[in-house]
Amino acid sequence: MTSALLPGAALHPPHEPALLSQYRHVRAATETLVADLSDADATVQSMDDASPAKWHLAHTTWFFEEFVLAARIPDYEPVDPAYRYLFNSYYEAVGARHPRPQRGLLTRPSLDEVLAYREAVDEAMLSLLGSAQTDDEAALIMLGLQHEQQHQELLLTDVLHLFAQNPLRPAFAPELPAPVIADPRPAPDWIGFDGGLVEIGHRGETFAFDCETPRHKVYLAPFTLCSHPVSNRQWFEFIEDGGYQSAGLWLSDGWRWVGEQGIQAPLYWEEREGTWWQMTLRGMHPVDPDSPVTHVSFYEADAFARWAERRLPTEAEWEHAASRLPATGNFVEGRALRPLPDRQNTAGVLRQMFGDVWEWTASAFLPYPGFRPNAGAVGEYNGKFMSGQMVLRGGSCVTPESHIRATYRNFFYPHQRWQFTGVRLADDV
Amino acid sequence: MTSALLPGAALHPPHEPALLSQYRHVRAATETLVADLSDADATVQSMDDASPAKWHLAHTTWFFEEFVLAARIPDYEPVDPAYRYLFNSYYEAVGARHPRPQRGLLTRPSLDEVLAYREAVDEAMLSLLGSAQTDDEAALIMLGLQHEQQHQELLLTDVLHLFAQNPLRPAFAPELPAPVIADPRPAPDWIGFDGGLVEIGHRGETFAFDCETPRHKVYLAPFTLCSHPVSNRQWFEFIEDGGYQSAGLWLSDGWRWVGEQGIQAPLYWEEREGTWWQMTLRGMHPVDPDSPVTHVSFYEADAFARWAERRLPTEAEWEHAASRLPATGNFVEGRALRPLPDRQNTAGVLRQMFGDVWEWTASAFLPYPGFRPNAGAVGEYNGKFMSGQMVLRGGSCVTPESHIRATYRNFFYPHQRWQFTGVRLADDV
Amino acid sequence: MTSALLPGAALHPPHEPALLSQYRHVRAATETLVADLSDADATVQSMDDASPAKWHLAHTTWFFEEFVLAARIPDYEPVDPAYRYLFNSYYEAVGARHPRPQRGLLTRPSLDEVLAYREAVDEAMLSLLGSAQTDDEAALIMLGLQHEQQHQELLLTDVLHLFAQNPLRPAFAPELPAPVIADPRPAPDWIGFDGGLVEIGHRGETFAFDCETPRHKVYLAPFTLCSHPVSNRQWFEFIEDGGYQSAGLWLSDGWRWVGEQGIQAPLYWEEREGTWWQMTLRGMHPVDPDSPVTHVSFYEADAFARWAERRLPTEAEWEHAASRLPATGNFVEGRALRPLPDRQNTAGVLRQMFGDVWEWTASAFLPYPGFRPNAGAVGEYNGKFMSGQMVLRGGSCVTPESHIRATYRNFFYPHQRWQFTGVRLADDV
Amino acid sequence: MTSALLPGAALHPPHEPALLSQYRHVRAATETLVADLSDADATVQSMDDASPAKWHLAHTTWFFEEFVLAARIPDYEPVDPAYRYLFNSYYEAVGARHPRPQRGLLTRPSLDEVLAYREAVDEAMLSLLGSAQTDDEAALIMLGLQHEQQHQELLLTDVLHLFAQNPLRPAFAPELPAPVIADPRPAPDWIGFDGGLVEIGHRGETFAFDCETPRHKVYLAPFTLCSHPVSNRQWFEFIEDGGYQSAGLWLSDGWRWVGEQGIQAPLYWEEREGTWWQMTLRGMHPVDPDSPVTHVSFYEADAFARWAERRLPTEAEWEHAASRLPATGNFVEGRALRPLPDRQNTAGVLRQMFGDVWEWTASAFLPYPGFRPNAGAVGEYNGKFMSGQMVLRGGSCVTPESHIRATYRNFFYPHQRWQFTGVRLADDV
Repeated sequence: MTSALLPGAALHPPHEPALLSQYRHVRAATETLVADLSDADATVQSMDDASPAKWHLAHTTWFFEEFVLAARIPDYEPVDPAYRYLFNSYYEAVGARHPRPQRGLLTRPSLDEVLAYREAVDEAMLSLLGSAQTDDEAALIMLGLQHEQQHQELLLTDVLHLFAQNPLRPAFAPELPAPVIADPRPAPDWIGFDGGLVEIGHRGETFAFDCETPRHKVYLAPFTLCSHPVSNRQWFEFIEDGGYQSAGLWLSDGWRWVGEQGIQAPLYWEEREGTWWQMTLRGMHPVDPDSPVTHVSFYEADAFARWAERRLPTEAEWEHAASRLPATGNFVEGRALRPLPDRQNTAGVLRQMFGDVWEWTASAFLPYPGFRPNAGAVGEYNGKFMSGQMVLRGGSCVTPESHIRATYRNFFYPHQRWQFTGVRLADDV
Repeated sequence: MTSALLPGAALHPPHEPALLSQYRHVRAATETLVADLSDADATVQSMDDASPAKWHLAHTTWFFEEFVLAARIPDYEPVDPAYRYLFNSYYEAVGARHPRPQRGLLTRPSLDEVLAYREAVDEAMLSLLGSAQTDDEAALIMLGLQHEQQHQELLLTDVLHLFAQNPLRPAFAPELPAPVIADPRPAPDWIGFDGGLVEIGHRGETFAFDCETPRHKVYLAPFTLCSHPVSNRQWFEFIEDGGYQSAGLWLSDGWRWVGEQGIQAPLYWEEREGTWWQMTLRGMHPVDPDSPVTHVSFYEADAFARWAERRLPTEAEWEHAASRLPATGNFVEGRALRPLPDRQNTAGVLRQMFGDVWEWTASAFLPYPGFRPNAGAVGEYNGKFMSGQMVLRGGSCVTPESHIRATYRNFFYPHQRWQFTGVRLADDV
Repeated sequence: MTSALLPGAALHPPHEPALLSQYRHVRAATETLVADLSDADATVQSMDDASPAKWHLAHTTWFFEEFVLAARIPDYEPVDPAYRYLFNSYYEAVGARHPRPQRGLLTRPSLDEVLAYREAVDEAMLSLLGSAQTDDEAALIMLGLQHEQQHQELLLTDVLHLFAQNPLRPAFAPELPAPVIADPRPAPDWIGFDGGLVEIGHRGETFAFDCETPRHKVYLAPFTLCSHPVSNRQWFEFIEDGGYQSAGLWLSDGWRWVGEQGIQAPLYWEEREGTWWQMTLRGMHPVDPDSPVTHVSFYEADAFARWAERRLPTEAEWEHAASRLPATGNFVEGRALRPLPDRQNTAGVLRQMFGDVWEWTASAFLPYPGFRPNAGAVGEYNGKFMSGQMVLRGGSCVTPESHIRATYRNFFYPHQRWQFTGVRLADDV
Repeated sequence: MTSALLPGAALHPPHEPALLSQYRHVRAATETLVADLSDADATVQSMDDASPAKWHLAHTTWFFEEFVLAARIPDYEPVDPAYRYLFNSYYEAVGARHPRPQRGLLTRPSLDEVLAYREAVDEAMLSLLGSAQTDDEAALIMLGLQHEQQHQELLLTDVLHLFAQNPLRPAFAPELPAPVIADPRPAPDWIGFDGGLVEIGHRGETFAFDCETPRHKVYLAPFTLCSHPVSNRQWFEFIEDGGYQSAGLWLSDGWRWVGEQGIQAPLYWEEREGTWWQMTLRGMHPVDPDSPVTHVSFYEADAFARWAERRLPTEAEWEHAASRLPATGNFVEGRALRPLPDRQNTAGVLRQMFGDVWEWTASAFLPYPGFRPNAGAVGEYNGKFMSGQMVLRGGSCVTPESHIRATYRNFFYPHQRWQFTGVRLADDV
């Protein structure tokens, strides 16, 4: 995927206010993503968990209209009053909304009308951004931009899911480099950490979601992390060794899921005449043994770890390992889907911690000690999802680069796997 | 709806073979229907029972490619081999097919590509039609055209269902006259029939589906039919009298359906500040008291008849009444969605028997005595659906005029009501 | 099954009024059925379609209490007011009722308490029967007795279903003769009927359910009936010929049912090391090739007929064939599960028409012309089920002998097969 | 509930080996519980989550037969080979098993047969216990006894659920004292804890489940705990304040659950003419304002805490608070369902921490650092359930007294509430 598709949003040309510049960049990046989609591609919803591309375009716009423009501008006239209902995602405090499973029935407004909606809101936002903001307003706008970056990733994973349901297996963008990067490498290494009383959580100087705070103390026993994410080659071994047929490897919920869904391989894998193929954003390709495995559920990640006689890291272990090492420029422009620079400690090198696959952790998504959600309707952003979901760390190949950070807590239900989700093993010492 | 949308298909200019001419007309009529649909409108499937407009366009084309071109032309090269799988509806004998509930996920091929598919098949068909056909081949082609006319009606009812799910309630074609015609009239009349040993079923001189044959004897006791279909005004009374809350009026299956689905009015009716509105192909309009009620299920039709202390006619009664009266030109060109001429017997006038609403009968869709399905895969056309469905007669406002005939047996499950379905009462003498 | 279990109810000792005598016999017969059931056996409900034995005992009693005692006796004190709610089956007019799928949760009242309830109601009923009745009351009591006989059959089929779910496959009564009788016989014969304008339906001199009336004219084309029901041996052939795997043999609804339920043989058949065994009221036994096949659905019956290149008879054909032949004493006491005497016409002998298996017909359960349901709440008895069900004729091996008659219309949904349901083939001439 | 029903299992008369004595006591206690149940009461399963009493009796016996007798005795002859299949709960390693939702269909073996099964296994076990055991075998037997104590509690909660489905609302044992004890008391108090680097988890000297180990360090910020569990009186206020109608109080999953299930009060509460009644093991009683609220889900507990502007404690906070205070004899014989003695620190008194209601914590049930499941099939005991469930602490009024300890980790899914589950609030300092 070229940088044109998912540029970092952090460029601040000196002659423009930083927020205005960031707004322009993030919004433009979203539109770049849909350049090759037809009206139909952008309209259809392939499962309840996914949303249409058009909906992503409109909902991220609604966020600015609802939370910024309508709050700031007296007697604000909405671009279209119906959109308030149509494009609310889950904010109960804002009012009624269109049911999620019916998002794909909205053939009207068309893609062009949605792009016009974006343009109208952008015009008002840019005018507003040209003048001064309160800190609260600036924080809301920044939240809106981070929100939009999340939807950039979802838009791509949702389109991939849609195209994977089509027997023609169309490519989203055939000329893209592989979204998950192969890493020809020495054998994986195990890197030790002493643990002890450490701190995790965001420090609060730059943007973070409420759920990344407050920074707090955690006690960690000594542990090791594998230098690399689990590769497709390792997953072949798991399959060949009967991993999907061995009840003893699985959590009880996971084993039921495997049975009921008939799971036998990662999502998007298909066996054709003895070879595993994988549906990707570039269409169907043979599975690359050297790439990190992706599109696996927490249940699969956990079963794999048990098969390997290891375990998944906790989110505190992961963050501690990721953050105490020198940050050697991960957030610069121009990542271009190369792995971020490796992080190294005395005992070895941690590779591909960021920007390849979201790594399932052993931690449930729960509030940090002392957690307080944001005030107002945006307080529904993270806190209300702290039930039944597991934390993932690191960011994937379709995460906007400026959206990646060591404290970031992504979360999904343990059966979900249409995101670029993978596995890194850990162990006790 | 203008005649341009649903022209009769029976024009035979003297300088062309009749079948060729009919082919041109029917195929062109289908394409006229989608002129105002976007790619997205034509792609989305709003429920399992419905199909996308694009699918209707492609499937009717597949019928000719699969059953005519591939059978006739040696080493026939399909336009696209994948279409054979994608656009088979339910012909088990033809092979695997795309699952029905996933028809709406096919954003590719696009509407334009599907129209190009039609053009390619039309070219081959027109060339084939320019030369001589066997009787069997001609029969298959005629079947394909009747099949396409059925899909013209389904396409419209499916688009109406899709648009009705959209909170914007878009109009398919706002300038259309009402698809169901109001008939300001004298009070309904009851028309008597002597019954006795009569014949029903198609005589076989012109086209009919296999299920309309063989013509056979049926004994009918004397009966009466109401001169008019039940009107919306009558349905208001049923609602106001608590019809939807009175268990005693309903079949057991129907009462369960009412409870589980929360049914309180015909499909597409919405109460807004005390007035009933109805979603139509022209958008939202107040319910017209003088129009026939439509979008009611068999369960509702049956409950209404019980409330009215009447009953539904059997299909034999209906056909006998419809066919023994002079056919005064129902099948001429230019119906333009006016009701067909009335039929009259000595005791009164039967009005709006054809072309307003499909009238639910009291008869299950079962084989006529001596029924033999067509040979080959097209034998799956009707026979295998003879279970659990009820017969409807007469044709609706969106049935192509040349597709209407007194022997026609339409059939749907008793809970279905997204077609233009209505009610005519009957009674014993 | 011995006659002690399901005695005829028609004995009228000269010194007692007929109805009183019949009441005693039918009620006693029901209790005989549960003599070997434990409290637990009588309490559990094995599926929504089935009811616990205890519920059958109580509900049939409730019928007399609700419709006879409470109607006749001023200020009637119910045996237990809660029973009115607990043991109503589906009479909407009578009031709220315990939900059907939860009948099996009623561990209280116990079997003994339910038997005491029966005794209390019997005492009041016998007292009432000792005095004069109006015709309407006598008709209601007779309806209650016929109702109870229906539940005798259901009780046995429900216990069989329950015991078949138990991996121990317990026998209900191991010493019973086979409930479905093997008939070593000459090859099946085809018996012709001329048809024409005939009459079917009950004449009204003796008891019949409302749905068996009115007697009315039907026109029948000439047809043939097979002399015997389809045997297990024939069903082996159907299975071996891939009958359950051949889409072309099945109705569309049936084919979906086969796929979703994984149907591969009649209900209660199990293949063990190459031999078919069958769960019966006597426990597990090898399937007897000479017995009529039983526990097949309408879908299976219809598919078998198509495979055999025949068809199912209509209910009018069946009744006409059954009734125009001399009734040679079918209703005498002491059937003891031998087949009723055969019926013979000039062209052959119809065997096992009654008392072996309920024979699926090709007819939907719909009202006869001029049908009027009974007045009052008992009008819900049959009429409201005239939707989606198919008619069966003849009576099974667990139908009380005095409950069998040529005009009897039994009805079940096309997928149901826990009754003793079988197949007799018919054909056009 | 008298102590006869749920005696402690820890009595060790000096003349008997402790394990043998404990075996006798625990096994006898189970049988005492079913003394008043009929065969039917003991057979029916009221929901998938529950099991029949008979199944509890048999499954706990199967545990000893499968894991102790069959492992120890060469050529062991099982009491009934079928029981191995029927009474395995979820041990995949042991082989196939009867499907959980069908446990309630096993009317055979009868309650008496199951009690005879218990007797036969007890005889063999007592003989085995009379001789020497290896440590591993003794550990397995102790595990079996703790397992049986868990099932004692489940048996009672499952019977309560069953009886609550019966419109007669029968009492399990009407003379029982209230299972949840009212505590007339001063206003609740808030008790502070300093936190810091503390240890939780079982020390390993006495019995504990594998999931309670290893003991490990946890860092706790300062926190407070409420002196009392939340009372019914407080829950009345929550209801009256619209707690069940306020989306903002609920986790997203919880709000969906409330809507789909129509939740408006704790399980077993019924409003009758303005008064809340509650189904209990003693039958229907008015809700006692001074008793701890019980039969609430995690979702409800969490929403209540948010409404009260507090939070739930983590399991580490709970255990730290419970364990660092003097244990003043909680585990002595004779609790007789009085609350265990209170625990007190310098700042106040923690009341009713044990033996009233299981207290939902904010912690997901996940492995402790360094967790290793037991070896062999019993390794499936806890570890495989570490997904999607929340930890509860403290023990309920129907938990056997000797089964209660500060390190005990009970776990249920967040929507489950048929156990005696309650709430204790916590807060940050």
